[in-house]
Amino acid sequence: MSEELAPGPTESPPAPRAGPREVWKKGGRLLSVLLAVNVLLLACTLISGGAFNKVAVYDTDVFALLTTMMLLAALWILFYVLRTVRCPEAVPYRDAHAGPIWLRGGLVLFGICTLIMDVFKTGYYSSFFECQSAIKILHPLIQALFVIIQTYFLWVSAKDCIHVHLDLTRCGLMFTLATNLAIWMAAVVDESVHQAHSDSSSHSNTSHSRLAPDPERAGSQVGEDCSCNTAVCQIFQQGYFYLYPFNIEYSLFASTMLYVMWKNVGRLLSSSTHGHGHGHGHSPSRVSLFRETFFAGPILGLILFVVGLAIFIIYEVQVSGEEGRTQQALVMYYSFNIACLGLMTLVSLSGSIIYRFDRRAMDHHKNPTRTLDVALLMGAALGQYAISYYSIVAVVAGTPRDLLGALNLAHALLMIAQHVFQNVFIIESLHRGPPGAEPHDTPHKEPCHGLTFANLDALHTLPSCPPTPTLAGSSPAGPPEAVAIILAPEGHWRRRCLKDISLFLLLCNIILWIMPAFGARPHFSNTVEVDFYGYSLWAAIVNICLPFGIFYRMHAVSSLLEVYVLS
Amino acid sequence: MSEELAPGPTESPPAPRAGPREVWKKGGRLLSVLLAVNVLLLACTLISGGAFNKVAVYDTDVFALLTTMMLLAALWILFYVLRTVRCPEAVPYRDAHAGPIWLRGGLVLFGICTLIMDVFKTGYYSSFFECQSAIKILHPLIQALFVIIQTYFLWVSAKDCIHVHLDLTRCGLMFTLATNLAIWMAAVVDESVHQAHSDSSSHSNTSHSRLAPDPERAGSQVGEDCSCNTAVCQIFQQGYFYLYPFNIEYSLFASTMLYVMWKNVGRLLSSSTHGHGHGHGHSPSRVSLFRETFFAGPILGLILFVVGLAIFIIYEVQVSGEEGRTQQALVMYYSFNIACLGLMTLVSLSGSIIYRFDRRAMDHHKNPTRTLDVALLMGAALGQYAISYYSIVAVVAGTPRDLLGALNLAHALLMIAQHVFQNVFIIESLHRGPPGAEPHDTPHKEPCHGLTFANLDALHTLPSCPPTPTLAGSSPAGPPEAVAIILAPEGHWRRRCLKDISLFLLLCNIILWIMPAFGARPHFSNTVEVDFYGYSLWAAIVNICLPFGIFYRMHAVSSLLEVYVLS
Repeated sequence: MSEELAPGPTESPPAPRAGPREVWKKGGRLLSVLLAVNVLLLACTLISGGAFNKVAVYDTDVFALLTTMMLLAALWILFYVLRTVRCPEAVPYRDAHAGPIWLRGGLVLFGICTLIMDVFKTGYYSSFFECQSAIKILHPLIQALFVIIQTYFLWVSAKDCIHVHLDLTRCGLMFTLATNLAIWMAAVVDESVHQAHSDSSSHSNTSHSRLAPDPERAGSQVGEDCSCNTAVCQIFQQGYFYLYPFNIEYSLFASTMLYVMWKNVGRLLSSSTHGHGHGHGHSPSRVSLFRETFFAGPILGLILFVVGLAIFIIYEVQVSGEEGRTQQALVMYYSFNIACLGLMTLVSLSGSIIYRFDRRAMDHHKNPTRTLDVALLMGAALGQYAISYYSIVAVVAGTPRDLLGALNLAHALLMIAQHVFQNVFIIESLHRGPPGAEPHDTPHKEPCHGLTFANLDALHTLPSCPPTPTLAGSSPAGPPEAVAIILAPEGHWRRRCLKDISLFLLLCNIILWIMPAFGARPHFSNTVEVDFYGYSLWAAIVNICLPFGIFYRMHAVSSLLEVYVLS
Repeated sequence: MSEELAPGPTESPPAPRAGPREVWKKGGRLLSVLLAVNVLLLACTLISGGAFNKVAVYDTDVFALLTTMMLLAALWILFYVLRTVRCPEAVPYRDAHAGPIWLRGGLVLFGICTLIMDVFKTGYYSSFFECQSAIKILHPLIQALFVIIQTYFLWVSAKDCIHVHLDLTRCGLMFTLATNLAIWMAAVVDESVHQAHSDSSSHSNTSHSRLAPDPERAGSQVGEDCSCNTAVCQIFQQGYFYLYPFNIEYSLFASTMLYVMWKNVGRLLSSSTHGHGHGHGHSPSRVSLFRETFFAGPILGLILFVVGLAIFIIYEVQVSGEEGRTQQALVMYYSFNIACLGLMTLVSLSGSIIYRFDRRAMDHHKNPTRTLDVALLMGAALGQYAISYYSIVAVVAGTPRDLLGALNLAHALLMIAQHVFQNVFIIESLHRGPPGAEPHDTPHKEPCHGLTFANLDALHTLPSCPPTPTLAGSSPAGPPEAVAIILAPEGHWRRRCLKDISLFLLLCNIILWIMPAFGARPHFSNTVEVDFYGYSLWAAIVNICLPFGIFYRMHAVSSLLEVYVLS
């Protein structure tokens, strides 16, 4: 995803301070990626080995590795912070697109939830202190320390384009990234094992050999002769499992910010864009929520949100009850989801149609944050696609064709359609330039593109467009402003519509995030897929793919917030 | 992996013929990627479902899907070929880096092997024609047709940068790519099931429930009351399993070429580079094999190749014999591999050291072929990394510490080191410009880089480097030529060394490709990992990761051939 034809006006010769240009950037990147890949694979081996029964890797081994990694990463972060504080010219440029306020705010929020989770974990393991190894209590404490240090670091340094010790910084950033991904993996595996345990106890079938911890192992997790019997201990245990989703999101948020910092190491930005974001930053100065919408989007979204929440609670209560009501709960759950996904698909589609009439130029500038956003949206959707395709095959090839099968099929098909159309809408939105009603921004765009879009024929009457981008000041200010004026009158209702659409999709994504993140698993309550694939295979599919699906919702919310602010 | 700072002189305004520039390239790419991802996931679901016992997806379903996909892809290819033949101005530019002769030659070679495999398959299924569904005989015939059409298409069109029907072409290319990847997946799964079947029959343990076909299923594969008893049928069956590796490589070769074509859709190349490759093409006019080497590399490589082949044959004979000789065979196999990997690590390392004294400029030009090569080398190595890390954990955490454990550990560690250093060497080689002894090429490089590298201090005495690269003709020809003349005398022995190194590594990679591709599985003969992880988990790890490891060897061979020609 690189824009070949629009190198953009953002790069310029280095400032005299920044020292000689790096000879081969890819070489430094290569080394740090190799380091991260190797560390991550080692962690992955231990974590996945520890998740299976009968494998002689214990959770203490995993905790020891994670604790060591977090300590090393924290030390490197402290070194980085001290160095940049003492030597301010180490960071000559700051990337205005990196670390936007909602990402950093989310990071702090999830960081606080992770700290609470660490308190719960410490409390849980302290309840049977005498028969635990010390590492189990040390691990949450070190994690709390790491979260505090890392959150501070990302808050102050997320926009840095550092220009000293390039290779060391790249390796440090990649190591910290690998640490966050390892914590994420450990949390996902731990949650899946817990989920599989509670599912298999309700679904008591002797063939559940994989991912469902057997009694011996569950015993060994809490020591041989201790168990969690006191009320306080039970609360701690329940509590930290409910807080896992936040820890998972914290690690992923931190990872994306670290990746953008890594991409920005040694990057050169022209001084004209430095500080106020490529001329495209479009600072959200007038974020007066809902003022510029038709109210239809947020109201409809809120209704769906409240209804969804109610249905989720009823579903959870009914599924944990007797067998007969599970069927009823599933019908309700699927009906709501089908309605919600159908509406979202239509709304995304109409958003894309509105863009067909929109004459704002596409933003072709290089922007690591946006490229990453797009890659994450596309990549994370794969998890939900995979679950849906497996469901479709099971329903189509499976023998019993009843109401639940039909609902399941419709749900899976709409899930795919919704992900496709929402991704198309979000990605197109993120690539639009700022609204045409702001003529002071337009000269920063490539004048050639702006013109091409407004009047294709005019292109041929002009002399050939300059292939090498000219900096903002030198481009003729006349034609783009004229384009902006033409666009202004009719742009307003479209803009309102887009804001409505993004708010509606945002609220729907939040409710679709809450359901799986807090434990709704229709995949197992519904017997179609379990009977078709067998419990172990289906559990493996869902447990590997669902975390990506949950992350997709989370990430879509933050992207839609950006779309709302930018449109 | 995009070069921000060197947009390169390769892009220029469109020629008047090519029509107006595309408004938003990413949009078209997005659509085609979404199509490919969805088709591929559907195929993946059916193929993986078909590989497991107890799942009601039959191989006829998979065959039907693959046949349909191949027919559609073949139709699109015919449409494309007819259109470009009738309308030559649809392809105004050709990317000289795409589809080099060794890639196309390899494609034809593997294509021929695939055709032979299809003959064997048709023969095998015809042996019990009466009790087979027609699709099983139709499938190899359609595949043969598809291979012929696709090979012709890639031979003539691999370099095309097409400029009509952009979105349709992108979708067609992505669909053909998805078809090839689906064929690859089906072949890998089929081969793994076959391998697991022959392993589990030697390793007769009742707990082998996954990926090892149970007798009923093996029966159902060849119909209820027919079996492959005749000698001809047995030969056909054996034969087509030995030809699978070539089919796998064919699909991957075709996929990489299709991906490069997809990246080149709508690409604009300046007319100065059009036809003779960015000024950096370095046409291999003087490829007189071995003339420019010290002979040490090829001779040592050939010795290792012959010894390796002998050891592979002895290993295969001994492992299929009684139990006691398996131990001996494994010691021999691991010893050879450790020696070979150790030598390769040292040689790659010395190649990287030679580059530290090399003053050739790095090539920062955009080059989709090379970016893909690098990504594939890094990505395919992950498979072997994963196997090695799982082995290391099993040996370190496992209880029995004997000679075989130590050899296994050394083998796994050296495997990681060898992949890391070889990747660093190959990637650095691919990014070097052509040899300094060719002054007529040097003005094409960014003059700023060449100077920076030869004399860092001189940079500060010069006026600021031009941020936008100037085209070849306009750059001052004096200084770079001077640099080239300085480099010429001592460049020669370095160049010979590099050619020796690349030939040695090439031969070693071939022998390390042959061993696993033709059935050596020390992973299962050796009991350490099987005992530690359990058969089913370890079989899943090896069967998923090893195909990537085998592809890595293949791809390293083609990259090293390129390094040999270019250095």
